[in-house]
Amino acid sequence: MTAAQDIRSAVARYLDAVATGPAADIADLYADGATLEDPVGSAQIVDRAAIRDFYSALDNATVKTELLALRVAGNSAAFHFRVSTEMPGQTVTIEPIDVMTFDDQARITSMRAFWSPDDITLG
Amino acid sequence: MTAAQDIRSAVARYLDAVATGPAADIADLYADGATLEDPVGSAQIVDRAAIRDFYSALDNATVKTELLALRVAGNSAAFHFRVSTEMPGQTVTIEPIDVMTFDDQARITSMRAFWSPDDITLG
Repeated sequence: MTAAQDIRSAVARYLDAVATGPAADIADLYADGATLEDPVGSAQIVDRAAIRDFYSALDNATVKTELLALRVAGNSAAFHFRVSTEMPGQTVTIEPIDVMTFDDQARITSMRAFWSPDDITLG
Repeated sequence: MTAAQDIRSAVARYLDAVATGPAADIADLYADGATLEDPVGSAQIVDRAAIRDFYSALDNATVKTELLALRVAGNSAAFHFRVSTEMPGQTVTIEPIDVMTFDDQARITSMRAFWSPDDITLG
């Protein structure tokens, strides 16, 4: 089993990478064949190239992330976090709860993001 | 798809039932054949009778619950909450992140609780 501390570090690296990019750096935190479902209920994205494309929307944005709560159980983590994206004239903020699973090298094997459009705030 | 508001209400009913019991009332919020994994990584419990037995540990305890964050996505919910159990001379508090899925009548079809013993606080 992956050590809880390794999973905590992987979540921290993920939030740092989402904030600083580029998309390829975020995708590198995922294992081969990893899956992504964001938000939960949408079509699942499979494998690193598609995952990189998913995050490329952030490449030219100014993004801040903040971890609000993290729980590790087995090879999984659930975490509540804030992500703020600066758009022209306003900041878009959302605080999803993500669930990730990890392989024995603490690479992300799956990510599922729980949020809905109702959770987006503009400021 | 189950309406988001119905899922929100179901989560509220669940937290109320965990606080007030009895275990049978909590189990009644689950669908036939529902599964429970608490904490994630432990053996899965299947069906309502076994789920009732799981919650029966709370039947003679004084329990308080408080919702900290809730995200609904599709037929699923992820929520961070506090549960405090009064024990002789101390209060045991834990703030798990739970993930639930629901059927079209907003009955719980699966529950997975993300927490580890490190997350328990005594006060």
